[in-house]
Amino acid sequence: MKREVAIVMGSISDWDTMKEAAEILENFGVNYDKKVISAHRMPKEMFAFSETAKDKGLKVIIAGAGGAAHLPGMVAANTILPVIGVPVKSRALNGMDSLLSIVQMPAGIPVATTAIGASGAKNAALLALQILGINDEEIAEKLVLFRKKQHDDAEKSGEQLG
Amino acid sequence: MKREVAIVMGSISDWDTMKEAAEILENFGVNYDKKVISAHRMPKEMFAFSETAKDKGLKVIIAGAGGAAHLPGMVAANTILPVIGVPVKSRALNGMDSLLSIVQMPAGIPVATTAIGASGAKNAALLALQILGINDEEIAEKLVLFRKKQHDDAEKSGEQLG
Amino acid sequence: MKREVAIVMGSISDWDTMKEAAEILENFGVNYDKKVISAHRMPKEMFAFSETAKDKGLKVIIAGAGGAAHLPGMVAANTILPVIGVPVKSRALNGMDSLLSIVQMPAGIPVATTAIGASGAKNAALLALQILGINDEEIAEKLVLFRKKQHDDAEKSGEQLG
Amino acid sequence: MKREVAIVMGSISDWDTMKEAAEILENFGVNYDKKVISAHRMPKEMFAFSETAKDKGLKVIIAGAGGAAHLPGMVAANTILPVIGVPVKSRALNGMDSLLSIVQMPAGIPVATTAIGASGAKNAALLALQILGINDEEIAEKLVLFRKKQHDDAEKSGEQLG
Amino acid sequence: MKREVAIVMGSISDWDTMKEAAEILENFGVNYDKKVISAHRMPKEMFAFSETAKDKGLKVIIAGAGGAAHLPGMVAANTILPVIGVPVKSRALNGMDSLLSIVQMPAGIPVATTAIGASGAKNAALLALQILGINDEEIAEKLVLFRKKQHDDAEKSGEQLG
Amino acid sequence: MKREVAIVMGSISDWDTMKEAAEILENFGVNYDKKVISAHRMPKEMFAFSETAKDKGLKVIIAGAGGAAHLPGMVAANTILPVIGVPVKSRALNGMDSLLSIVQMPAGIPVATTAIGASGAKNAALLALQILGINDEEIAEKLVLFRKKQHDDAEKSGEQLG
Amino acid sequence: MKREVAIVMGSISDWDTMKEAAEILENFGVNYDKKVISAHRMPKEMFAFSETAKDKGLKVIIAGAGGAAHLPGMVAANTILPVIGVPVKSRALNGMDSLLSIVQMPAGIPVATTAIGASGAKNAALLALQILGINDEEIAEKLVLFRKKQHDDAEKSGEQLG
Amino acid sequence: MKREVAIVMGSISDWDTMKEAAEILENFGVNYDKKVISAHRMPKEMFAFSETAKDKGLKVIIAGAGGAAHLPGMVAANTILPVIGVPVKSRALNGMDSLLSIVQMPAGIPVATTAIGASGAKNAALLALQILGINDEEIAEKLVLFRKKQHDDAEKSGEQLG
Repeated sequence: MKREVAIVMGSISDWDTMKEAAEILENFGVNYDKKVISAHRMPKEMFAFSETAKDKGLKVIIAGAGGAAHLPGMVAANTILPVIGVPVKSRALNGMDSLLSIVQMPAGIPVATTAIGASGAKNAALLALQILGINDEEIAEKLVLFRKKQHDDAEKSGEQLG
Repeated sequence: MKREVAIVMGSISDWDTMKEAAEILENFGVNYDKKVISAHRMPKEMFAFSETAKDKGLKVIIAGAGGAAHLPGMVAANTILPVIGVPVKSRALNGMDSLLSIVQMPAGIPVATTAIGASGAKNAALLALQILGINDEEIAEKLVLFRKKQHDDAEKSGEQLG
Repeated sequence: MKREVAIVMGSISDWDTMKEAAEILENFGVNYDKKVISAHRMPKEMFAFSETAKDKGLKVIIAGAGGAAHLPGMVAANTILPVIGVPVKSRALNGMDSLLSIVQMPAGIPVATTAIGASGAKNAALLALQILGINDEEIAEKLVLFRKKQHDDAEKSGEQLG
Repeated sequence: MKREVAIVMGSISDWDTMKEAAEILENFGVNYDKKVISAHRMPKEMFAFSETAKDKGLKVIIAGAGGAAHLPGMVAANTILPVIGVPVKSRALNGMDSLLSIVQMPAGIPVATTAIGASGAKNAALLALQILGINDEEIAEKLVLFRKKQHDDAEKSGEQLG
Repeated sequence: MKREVAIVMGSISDWDTMKEAAEILENFGVNYDKKVISAHRMPKEMFAFSETAKDKGLKVIIAGAGGAAHLPGMVAANTILPVIGVPVKSRALNGMDSLLSIVQMPAGIPVATTAIGASGAKNAALLALQILGINDEEIAEKLVLFRKKQHDDAEKSGEQLG
Repeated sequence: MKREVAIVMGSISDWDTMKEAAEILENFGVNYDKKVISAHRMPKEMFAFSETAKDKGLKVIIAGAGGAAHLPGMVAANTILPVIGVPVKSRALNGMDSLLSIVQMPAGIPVATTAIGASGAKNAALLALQILGINDEEIAEKLVLFRKKQHDDAEKSGEQLG
Repeated sequence: MKREVAIVMGSISDWDTMKEAAEILENFGVNYDKKVISAHRMPKEMFAFSETAKDKGLKVIIAGAGGAAHLPGMVAANTILPVIGVPVKSRALNGMDSLLSIVQMPAGIPVATTAIGASGAKNAALLALQILGINDEEIAEKLVLFRKKQHDDAEKSGEQLG
Repeated sequence: MKREVAIVMGSISDWDTMKEAAEILENFGVNYDKKVISAHRMPKEMFAFSETAKDKGLKVIIAGAGGAAHLPGMVAANTILPVIGVPVKSRALNGMDSLLSIVQMPAGIPVATTAIGASGAKNAALLALQILGINDEEIAEKLVLFRKKQHDDAEKSGEQLG
């Protein structure tokens, strides 16, 4: 089955965060690849992955990493596919290091950065879907429904306040 | 002529930053709308713009703002188009406030955030092009050439070092 | 019964913080509305609420939100009632993102910001009361008594030191 | 003529920022007192001012200070009038110290904090007017007009973009 | 018995930190006063305390507070005794707000600031003793012994490393 | 003539800041030593200076340094005289690095830290004078006059506001 | 047996972090010294250690410390051996103070700084090995194998993702 | 002539900082390579450079970069030579982003990080020399002389104070 989205992460320990992205994609019935590709410990695989990503049919790449988080930017450097970067919360600095390492890319190589941690992982998946939804009416419709449900859930949650 | 990208900004003073995005789009021969739509001073127009953006044929929205930068997130709340947020450098806090106000979106409504300032504005345009390039072979080819030239320029710049 | 104060929040999870504001208002015998109105997930309701707030007899609005906290500023953009913003402590950045997203409003649309977290929620209620107390002698008198008791409690607490 | 607003500041050097508040009040035709009252160098006057403020007919106090900015919080400690704190941009830390010293008040004594610097000073005046406007229909109407003009100016500014 | 040092704190909850200062003073056999004097909730007592401190025979004042920590600076404003400020760790910002509110005093009114939390409290007591030790040979000698023991303990602790 | 205060600094470039301390001492007619003693480039002199400081009759040491500012803490480690640390504003981080390097001393070795930059240097001198003033009635009286003049200047400065 | 690496730390409590460095060295079969040498509590030993380190045959020094972390810089000031500094996570500021106190050294005395906490301790050992490996073919070969294993472990960890 | 040190940088604009490293090496009579190798714009060259660096006879690599500074870490990922990272001061965040992107490397791949900006570049060169000096007596002797001169210059600079 065709896979248009890949979720890559710098370490298996990032999965705890990145699985939130996976779950969203699954709920939308969108297939995806998932891989640990450490920019620092597996640089060759990281290069190979990013250079061939487009030819393999991928359309959007979600990359999560923490600390000196180089994975999203280095993947972006080797493909013209849009790369979404998720700053994973780090132990000492709570993900501020991850965020700055991902978002402060120099002119020329963009990374679409989302929030630190689980919210950012979820939003990375939603952003990927919104990108695919530009040309995929089915996904677009599901996004409209998702937003609708999200709205209703938020509204309903307020009823608890009495 | 069809316009698939819009550049919106919270204040005319943001244009100094956002024009870098415009220039990139122009170099790629991609038409775009540009508007000042202050989330705080023109909320109705901001709503109207974002709710109708998709129907008007827009595919990607670039939104720049500084300080308590609510524009990108509020536009994103009202459309399923991908919204790219550019944190404009602010006077007191150098754009750290803009960055956090844009990137730290709650789960459900993503904003694709780029770097603070001019580099971020340029990258917002390139990200928009990379998104369009998924389904537009012409843009994709231009992006490959852009990357090639960028590479060659960087390489050549090193020759000055002697 | 007439309600002059509303407590709104971006998410039901903010109630844990915002209930501190509610409790203060109750202790002063001041009625209030409380609602979840997510700026991002319920933008229409947020607009409707803020545009009609004054006509419905509200005098002060307390708005709490965390992360890229847009609710207080967006409510403020749509009403000339004073809006008090409470930065809710966020998971990764401890509320520093909430604080900057709320307090760094551009010239033209003020948000009266209080401290991060529960202290800020309490103070938001007290600030609302102080505002009402300008023209409501009964509330003003209760505030004087509240301050008196607060003083006495602080003083007495020191006796434990021996 | 009756003065319902006072602008106080910790140092004459803060006037450069605080005059922005004064200008707004003047444009609204609202009289105000202005004073240098250093919390640290003139503590007695600071106390006397805040304790008597309400009896002298003041309704709102705007207090600006920089660095270890104690003035707004100390004034607030001695009056039940609403106190609006303006963090003045400081030399070394760009006003981050001023902001935290003003906004992070403990539960019990609120300070309505605005943005760092000139925008915050303007917004302090607007917030004061919004507070007065609760019971002063003339000010409320002027605020509506101010918002309208602000909206139109923002909208018009966009026309420069071509 | 003569008391030359006072330990004051903004809230009884600061005692958990400030008792570290007390313990050091006790170990040196130096009498001290301890009091809760909230700058915000007990401003009159705070003024009275600081204005009369010198006349009552105090020589050094240790003041601990958290958040928008105004107590050390306000005490310092009302006495020419040296005031040592201890930034108590705060809930949201880990004492960074306390630190900046205490240390960033304007020229004219110094506060001798120590580290955030328990280490700072201990050091405040040691600093007070070092100040007293300038003219008190007995304290000076005890300080030399304390340093000696501290040195030996550090050295001995290394033996555990094997 | 007897010198009870020394001003030391890590680099001659710190003099621009530290001369503010010198000027205050001169205005009070207090003699002082001044020296460049780099903790990193002149460690032996730094040790020698601090170990002999007390025996040479010094009573208080003011130490200014920037960046990884180790001078105040290292001087403090070698003397039981009170050491006042002045964080000099650094090029990249505006003195935040200097401040944390000076103030965050571990339990056992206190440094009395003042504000970043010129204000901190002035206050270091005033703090030294307040320490000397505990046992020197003449200095104490001058401090009272200094405070008085400072008060009057602040008060008078407000007259400019009209 | 010859020891070319020393691990020193400011406090026995740093061992919890620094033992990660020790373990790496042991895995490589490299002997090392380990010592508590507090810059502040044992300055003489610190001096003696660093001044004699080279003559004793040491080639690289790893120094860990937290808070106002002066040990790495002060050791570096007294030897021309390369000194690797490990910022130990501190209680209030999560090691940001340790990091800045170690890395922001003035021109002239370098400290090779690694990440905050356990990762930094491990990397300090690896960096020491890489330095020794320049002239020690056996260590170099082990490093290549270490990298290979690290790569394979990272790759294999991804298989858990299914 | 044999070159044992390479200075690489992410952009020609970093040369302004990195030339400080070059100058130190020249003063020591040590040959070096210098190159612009952008991790993001020239990833292939970056890989090729780092993978072959050891075989070409290099012993130490100095890598400078700003913003999301991935160059030092990515070079380090592809060589077992020691890599020294210099955080170049960035426009918006003054190099804090560069510092965290370089220093916060995950366990397994160390980067020896120096201070932000010109001081860090100088120290990178000195650190490289100290590393080479372990096995090169001539360099070691020059380092001793350099330290001596540095000491004398610091000492002499103090004479200006009069």
